[in-house]
Amino acid sequence: MVERRKPISVQEAVSKVMNHVHLMPEEIVSIDDSDDGVLAEDIYADHDVPPFNRSPYDGFAIIAEDTSHASRENPVTLEVIEEIGAGDVAQNSVGHGQAIRIMTGAALPKGANAIVMLEIVHEKNDGKKIEIKRHIKKFDNISWQGEDTEKGALLLEKGHHVTPGVKAVLATFGYAKVKVYKQPVIGIIATGSELLNVSEPLVPGKIRNSNAHMIISQVKQAGGMPKYFGQLKDDLEQSFQGVKKVLSEVDALITTGGVSVGDFDYLPDIYQKLGAEVLFNKVGMRPGSVTTVAYLPDSGKILFGLSGNPSSCFVGFELFAGPYIKASQGLNNKFLDNVEATLTHDFPKPNPFNRFVRSRVTFENGYWHSQPVGLDKSNIVTSLIGANALMVLPGGTRGYQKGDKVKALLLNGEGSEQFCL
Amino acid sequence: MVERRKPISVQEAVSKVMNHVHLMPEEIVSIDDSDDGVLAEDIYADHDVPPFNRSPYDGFAIIAEDTSHASRENPVTLEVIEEIGAGDVAQNSVGHGQAIRIMTGAALPKGANAIVMLEIVHEKNDGKKIEIKRHIKKFDNISWQGEDTEKGALLLEKGHHVTPGVKAVLATFGYAKVKVYKQPVIGIIATGSELLNVSEPLVPGKIRNSNAHMIISQVKQAGGMPKYFGQLKDDLEQSFQGVKKVLSEVDALITTGGVSVGDFDYLPDIYQKLGAEVLFNKVGMRPGSVTTVAYLPDSGKILFGLSGNPSSCFVGFELFAGPYIKASQGLNNKFLDNVEATLTHDFPKPNPFNRFVRSRVTFENGYWHSQPVGLDKSNIVTSLIGANALMVLPGGTRGYQKGDKVKALLLNGEGSEQFCL
Repeated sequence: MVERRKPISVQEAVSKVMNHVHLMPEEIVSIDDSDDGVLAEDIYADHDVPPFNRSPYDGFAIIAEDTSHASRENPVTLEVIEEIGAGDVAQNSVGHGQAIRIMTGAALPKGANAIVMLEIVHEKNDGKKIEIKRHIKKFDNISWQGEDTEKGALLLEKGHHVTPGVKAVLATFGYAKVKVYKQPVIGIIATGSELLNVSEPLVPGKIRNSNAHMIISQVKQAGGMPKYFGQLKDDLEQSFQGVKKVLSEVDALITTGGVSVGDFDYLPDIYQKLGAEVLFNKVGMRPGSVTTVAYLPDSGKILFGLSGNPSSCFVGFELFAGPYIKASQGLNNKFLDNVEATLTHDFPKPNPFNRFVRSRVTFENGYWHSQPVGLDKSNIVTSLIGANALMVLPGGTRGYQKGDKVKALLLNGEGSEQFCL
Repeated sequence: MVERRKPISVQEAVSKVMNHVHLMPEEIVSIDDSDDGVLAEDIYADHDVPPFNRSPYDGFAIIAEDTSHASRENPVTLEVIEEIGAGDVAQNSVGHGQAIRIMTGAALPKGANAIVMLEIVHEKNDGKKIEIKRHIKKFDNISWQGEDTEKGALLLEKGHHVTPGVKAVLATFGYAKVKVYKQPVIGIIATGSELLNVSEPLVPGKIRNSNAHMIISQVKQAGGMPKYFGQLKDDLEQSFQGVKKVLSEVDALITTGGVSVGDFDYLPDIYQKLGAEVLFNKVGMRPGSVTTVAYLPDSGKILFGLSGNPSSCFVGFELFAGPYIKASQGLNNKFLDNVEATLTHDFPKPNPFNRFVRSRVTFENGYWHSQPVGLDKSNIVTSLIGANALMVLPGGTRGYQKGDKVKALLLNGEGSEQFCL
């Protein structure tokens, strides 16, 4: 019997997945193990930045008024009474006619109200005196305590990715350890009796399994820890036991293949035996219309049943599994960024469903341009190489023309909080 | 004595660095250890794709002409003579009045010249017969051998990043092992007597070392393997010995701090003692003007002397060290992508040098907008958090106004082959 499936919209499908996100527990890691993690705590300033009034340059701390009448013709000479390094604090106060030599980052000595840069003074008497040939304004070249950030300020909210800039902030404010969300372990299982391993020679009727290797990379990119369990056997009971065991070792499971309406596609039966709630098994999109997502109410674990064909698999991952993995790791920007782009080629084939066309977007002359890569046949693996975006062509009765404005979802972007079509 | 340094242009500085790239040796790794690596060999198709004429759907292989007169009122009935799975090859040929049930991806049986999708046939007699109510065109639903890629075709040139799509291609064409460039080991040393470790409490005059942690992340992002060696001592001979030892363990070295013109900045002396050729020690840019790059002719190793202040350090890394690391790993797209953006705020302060202003770019209503983050003072660490671009403001005698078009170098982009200002 052929099962008749009712397609739901892509937006609806994304919402259903997002309503079943299982947030990972928190863990405390060393700052240098936090790269690419997601903050599970808000980050506050434990001190003013700068923590004291300080010099942004190598130079001399002086009293600005001493230079009121200084000029090229009439330089003022000051006595250098002390010399301090960046981490030192001056022993003396600066009095009129005096200067303290000071390094970048060093605290402004008492009495001084300006820094004059090293480059614009003339040192005399072996550095015991300096000559200044211009008027230095009061408060010149002083980085003021707290001018960047005041103690207690909220710097970062949880859900933020740990980037190099975030690392700098964590280090500055003493977060030697930081609370992040654990990475979800994502199980991957391939199905399909036509699949050979990458190291096997081709034989008639078979193809090499490319999806598993692709998905492993996609999981890593999304922040998950991929765990590949190989292929399911062509036996329902064995496969059911296999999936059940895998589920005990992972936070979520991705399968490739086995979700079409053919008789040999037994994942629907496995979902049923597991007691999983099928959130959807048909989505109004091309490729990837048979993408299936199911949910285990007991454990809160989710199962992504991606199509076995490479492009459907790729698109199904990017639209549903990728955002899920990011959301389960607490990331705010879990969806693909989108930009408006100009179509560079006609795309005449109309389709009743939304199409997600692997494309190469480039930014030229102030605009994004979107070029479909390869033919848009869902089984074409090489077209994925150059793609850096999924171009969205809403379903309808007409095709698209060169020059049309389209949306493109960026595969390498920063991410967005909202899913936008 | 204050050393007078002659600034060179940013473009010139980038060229000097690129002229001294030391390409890493190749290594052969398993496909699943190749993620984020850079291909060190061209990739060719070892077979046609598809490797045989095959079905893109679950359905029935038929002779199209058998359906010439089929209609809703006058369906044609065919006998199902065999049923094959995706990896199987049919034992029989399809004759007139016959059909073979076929799974997605399975080879087209002999005799057949079209596939009819499972969904549009009516199965009868327990699947022994099918009824078709429409005319199926010759060659309908056949994925032709070689229609994607022909055997022997060049698929990817070396210098390409290993992305999920590339992994799929490698797997498809039997690259169980693949030649990539080794990751360069990048030593990191902090200098500055004012620096505390992240776990130390603040004391007057001192700040926590944030640069090292930031650079560690930046090195990882650029594809290098960071190795942090802690801080140099405030003693020239000890420091020289320290740097020398570190250089024997790394492919390139990044130091933070110690490159200003202050007396306590002894990296220039260390370069001299090492016999290093200083490529430049002043660049016409803000921040990061004191960024220094030196080169060891004997070993081919390069030394990046980044400024000690966080923003200068960040910018110096992104402009010089990041592209170097990528180039040394053989990556073609080693430079930051750039886009044209509209300035969202006045930036009135003129500067004779090119400024690289940490900014947040967003894409709205068909255009990029660029907003400077935080104040543009080079010591402000928190402004790095939200930055996703370096806005380029060419040096000159006037400031910039809201609405001006500016270039922005994207920190999270795909990368570009050319350095563009």
